[in-house]
Amino acid sequence: MRSLRQRLHDTIFQHDEPAERAFDVVVIVAIMLSVLVVMLDSVAAISARYGRALYAAEWFFTILFTVEYLLRLWTAKRPLAYARSFYGIVDLLSVLPTWLSIVFPPGRFLVVLRALRVLRVFRILKLAEYVEQGAVLSAALRASRYKITVFVTTVITVTIIVGSLMYLIEGPASGFTSIPQSVYWAIVTLTTVGYGDVAPASPLGKALAATLMIMGYGIIAVPTGIVTLELDRASRAQAPRRECPGCGVTRHDADATFCKHCGTEL
Amino acid sequence: MRSLRQRLHDTIFQHDEPAERAFDVVVIVAIMLSVLVVMLDSVAAISARYGRALYAAEWFFTILFTVEYLLRLWTAKRPLAYARSFYGIVDLLSVLPTWLSIVFPPGRFLVVLRALRVLRVFRILKLAEYVEQGAVLSAALRASRYKITVFVTTVITVTIIVGSLMYLIEGPASGFTSIPQSVYWAIVTLTTVGYGDVAPASPLGKALAATLMIMGYGIIAVPTGIVTLELDRASRAQAPRRECPGCGVTRHDADATFCKHCGTEL
Amino acid sequence: MRSLRQRLHDTIFQHDEPAERAFDVVVIVAIMLSVLVVMLDSVAAISARYGRALYAAEWFFTILFTVEYLLRLWTAKRPLAYARSFYGIVDLLSVLPTWLSIVFPPGRFLVVLRALRVLRVFRILKLAEYVEQGAVLSAALRASRYKITVFVTTVITVTIIVGSLMYLIEGPASGFTSIPQSVYWAIVTLTTVGYGDVAPASPLGKALAATLMIMGYGIIAVPTGIVTLELDRASRAQAPRRECPGCGVTRHDADATFCKHCGTEL
Amino acid sequence: MRSLRQRLHDTIFQHDEPAERAFDVVVIVAIMLSVLVVMLDSVAAISARYGRALYAAEWFFTILFTVEYLLRLWTAKRPLAYARSFYGIVDLLSVLPTWLSIVFPPGRFLVVLRALRVLRVFRILKLAEYVEQGAVLSAALRASRYKITVFVTTVITVTIIVGSLMYLIEGPASGFTSIPQSVYWAIVTLTTVGYGDVAPASPLGKALAATLMIMGYGIIAVPTGIVTLELDRASRAQAPRRECPGCGVTRHDADATFCKHCGTEL
Repeated sequence: MRSLRQRLHDTIFQHDEPAERAFDVVVIVAIMLSVLVVMLDSVAAISARYGRALYAAEWFFTILFTVEYLLRLWTAKRPLAYARSFYGIVDLLSVLPTWLSIVFPPGRFLVVLRALRVLRVFRILKLAEYVEQGAVLSAALRASRYKITVFVTTVITVTIIVGSLMYLIEGPASGFTSIPQSVYWAIVTLTTVGYGDVAPASPLGKALAATLMIMGYGIIAVPTGIVTLELDRASRAQAPRRECPGCGVTRHDADATFCKHCGTEL
Repeated sequence: MRSLRQRLHDTIFQHDEPAERAFDVVVIVAIMLSVLVVMLDSVAAISARYGRALYAAEWFFTILFTVEYLLRLWTAKRPLAYARSFYGIVDLLSVLPTWLSIVFPPGRFLVVLRALRVLRVFRILKLAEYVEQGAVLSAALRASRYKITVFVTTVITVTIIVGSLMYLIEGPASGFTSIPQSVYWAIVTLTTVGYGDVAPASPLGKALAATLMIMGYGIIAVPTGIVTLELDRASRAQAPRRECPGCGVTRHDADATFCKHCGTEL
Repeated sequence: MRSLRQRLHDTIFQHDEPAERAFDVVVIVAIMLSVLVVMLDSVAAISARYGRALYAAEWFFTILFTVEYLLRLWTAKRPLAYARSFYGIVDLLSVLPTWLSIVFPPGRFLVVLRALRVLRVFRILKLAEYVEQGAVLSAALRASRYKITVFVTTVITVTIIVGSLMYLIEGPASGFTSIPQSVYWAIVTLTTVGYGDVAPASPLGKALAATLMIMGYGIIAVPTGIVTLELDRASRAQAPRRECPGCGVTRHDADATFCKHCGTEL
Repeated sequence: MRSLRQRLHDTIFQHDEPAERAFDVVVIVAIMLSVLVVMLDSVAAISARYGRALYAAEWFFTILFTVEYLLRLWTAKRPLAYARSFYGIVDLLSVLPTWLSIVFPPGRFLVVLRALRVLRVFRILKLAEYVEQGAVLSAALRASRYKITVFVTTVITVTIIVGSLMYLIEGPASGFTSIPQSVYWAIVTLTTVGYGDVAPASPLGKALAATLMIMGYGIIAVPTGIVTLELDRASRAQAPRRECPGCGVTRHDADATFCKHCGTEL
């Protein structure tokens, strides 16, 4: 029995042997198909014609993923650690909505949360390059978290104040029906999304909006600058840092054999 | 008596002892709640049902902050310096609108200016990391002020000229009712906000708009470039802070082995 | 006969002699004119008045380009290699739609694919600078392909999940008629395009949209950061090209005094 | 007489003496006022009430600037060189429209071209910092001209092809009335302006639009990357480059007295 559990564990959690990889590919394809099924089922015209087939397919995938989740729980070396991990929670969330839909039908569209499982594809397919690049990206975003918190707090403060001023200037006639609504408009404008469902109508309101746009463009340039620098730092940190024994210079290319400044062998 | 004033001063202006920090947290929470009260009060449906309670809450917070302001004024070592400081003015502005609303009611929504007090949270909570990052961001923005002035002047000139041309080409029929209105459109377009409340209708107008967008994208890339470089410079200037044992200079590059001023080995 | 084929080959594929360059210029101008003809023909008012002339012009250009394609095929040293190359396929696609329009008339507008032939202008005009810069750009984009794949997968996952949540929150009343439609809205919002044809109406929907915009701005800053860094790397790799007299290695830093591979002084 | 011309030349073209600077300030203020007059005159409500006063003011400024232009022409050391220079042409264009409006009235709004004269303020006010920063910005833009040409050509080709495909997919019903109109939509979308006056309605059209947005975001990141790098290069080029006599390292800070690597005095 232990041997079966061990073998199942390898098939599910390892990604080296052909059989293990085949299992991974089947899971990924099943996830993509099941997300597609849910998306199509939400389209009224398609649901009307193929509703029954899609409903059956959804239950098929849900039972499949439920069995897979139970197997993962059973074969994991530390089941509790798996159940609490990011992917453990995602695996659970990807089957729960369908089961809960027996009680609360509209909630079943939440199964699209299983799309998060697709992110595992990078690890499963053992694409070293992808994993590495993903690590650079996430390291960059993690390193920027303080700057980003300061930035987001500033943006929210600015949008609350500008939104309130616009509420006083424009009023309900041009769509600024309340301060929360005006703050929503300020966020839509500052991020340059600009739906146009709420837009200033008075000359003073337009002047304030134009100021927000021009000044705001500088503000909104900040995250781009932060991410660029952190990406730079993260990719530099991955490259080895070798000190020249001759002159102490450290910025050498990855393929350097001799110091570019004094010619000493590295 | 002097002892009480001294103790109050520490509670209000210091942030080290548990009691001092507790005071800070209470103030921050009170500010957030009071901003929320004002925002909710501006929503017609909520105001109709809970208007009296919100009105009472607003006066409660205003009296609280007024007392706090007077205490700050009384216990500050140099009251005038405090009253003139950025936070001194913000503290005053965060209570004035409610008092003035006795005379001019609609102005009371200006109390959202007290949202600016939330920025103090970074200093109060002694989050060294946050303060440092905020310093990097503001240093970067300050260093860019000349480039940004040149840039803003250029953008305004371009938008005035393109706006006037569009006014001649399109005319009032498609929303370009005056040159200021057309300049507003040009700013909305150049910053890629694009509400769509004013949009060109004639082929020539569309061609000019398309040119403005493509050429403009290069122009609008400038603030991003400026902020990225200044962020880079600001974080470099702050980063390693190794003090030279010979002369005390602190701004050394990360890869420096000798002091750049006196030649002492670091 | 062989001499004629050889001479034609040089005229068509070489760009050095005056006659060869004259041929190139004629081809480019013909391509631009033919694209213009197709674009004008699609405008109802122009088509109604000048339809016959434009139709004739289109066939004139198509026959011209067909003859050119056959000549290229005949004179190419390895005809199959040419037919399979990017420009070989583009040359074929730029004449096929008109011929097929005899059977399927509306498809003839696909001849605008011949606009791709204009990209050849950089190579034809022998503008070394342009070719070099194009190489820097495409090298930068190629080097970023892993990061970009990770990024695009993340963006699609985020838009599917946020889109589904909005579908549950907003529903058909405010335009979120299905999950695919809501995902489309999420992409329009995340890329800051913001048409406004679909926009949230409920407070909860607006709050989620505002969160998507602010958080999304950080996500969307990633491609800019990636492209900036890869452009930097690509232009560094190309820039100084000093060849080492000892070992012939060419990729040296601008500030290198010794070869990083063999230690020879540069 | 020559002395008067010489003195006038200094007053107009020099910016050092108090009298010369006073003249500059008067000119700048007059330009700003005259642009304001034209902008206000285009607002129907204002024009109806103050039309006569604004009309008088416009002629007052035009005659003033005409006299100034003639004086510049008379006192310039090389009148023809001045007349052909950028500012010479701008000075002429800033008075011509009003004179021509005697014949063609609506053209007088073109006098806003005189807004370009405001750009001279940087030189006039002798703000060394501003001029320097402007030089960095324009050097950066000039250095990027090849990359930008390649980029713009690519963008135009992409928008023509995507625009034509959308014309075939969507058709006139959803606003894609012709290929030029569809190309205009593609530019509006690719630059993330997104007016929403034209937007895809069919599922296939929305899928293509979403692809254009996501892929396009990478394309549109290119100008930001280019400008950032060129700004970096331009500002580096301005800083002096000192080589260490001891080890040959060149990347020293502007305030370094000793080499950071070997301690040799610079």
